[in-house]
Amino acid sequence: MESKATLPDALAVMVDIFHEYASKDGNAHSLNKGEFKEMINAQFPHVFENSTDKEGIQKLMIDLDSDKSGEIDFSEYMTFLASLAVVCNEYLLESMKGCQKPCK
Amino acid sequence: MESKATLPDALAVMVDIFHEYASKDGNAHSLNKGEFKEMINAQFPHVFENSTDKEGIQKLMIDLDSDKSGEIDFSEYMTFLASLAVVCNEYLLESMKGCQKPCK
Repeated sequence: MESKATLPDALAVMVDIFHEYASKDGNAHSLNKGEFKEMINAQFPHVFENSTDKEGIQKLMIDLDSDKSGEIDFSEYMTFLASLAVVCNEYLLESMKGCQKPCK
Repeated sequence: MESKATLPDALAVMVDIFHEYASKDGNAHSLNKGEFKEMINAQFPHVFENSTDKEGIQKLMIDLDSDKSGEIDFSEYMTFLASLAVVCNEYLLESMKGCQKPCK
């Protein structure tokens, strides 16, 4: 990705990463439990580090699986990322006095 | 952004671009009509090219403004990007036989 990334670049990264993990096993159009865990651990390595947090990934997956299919489809994945972005933005606004860009 | 972009990278791009435009004028926590048009034209230059499509930007903004504040806040902006990603992904799946990565 070039030095000044654009919104289409960022969207393409999200689409690519979904398919990178969804295509590993079973239905290539959704993330099963193993694929979702692998993606979370690779992309957000410091979020779920201990055993309690590993249970957190399962709870997160259940919450995101709005159609109760047992897997995370692309729309559910984007709802997750949009929610993460909102939290990240709120954290940024709260911390703007002390430091910059805590999400990076 | 490094060669292999991650989801946190993509989220940071979305947060940064929102604030780049939202901070130009008035309320720095939302995009007014002028800021939203400027962002759309800069980030998606081929989407709204003719005069009819310029009216389309206004209609799009009205649709996205779910709380009817007259501006697009960060949550509404992320809803827009998540919807774009879903459309982009569906287009990708439809066109996978013929070509790769049409969203880039």
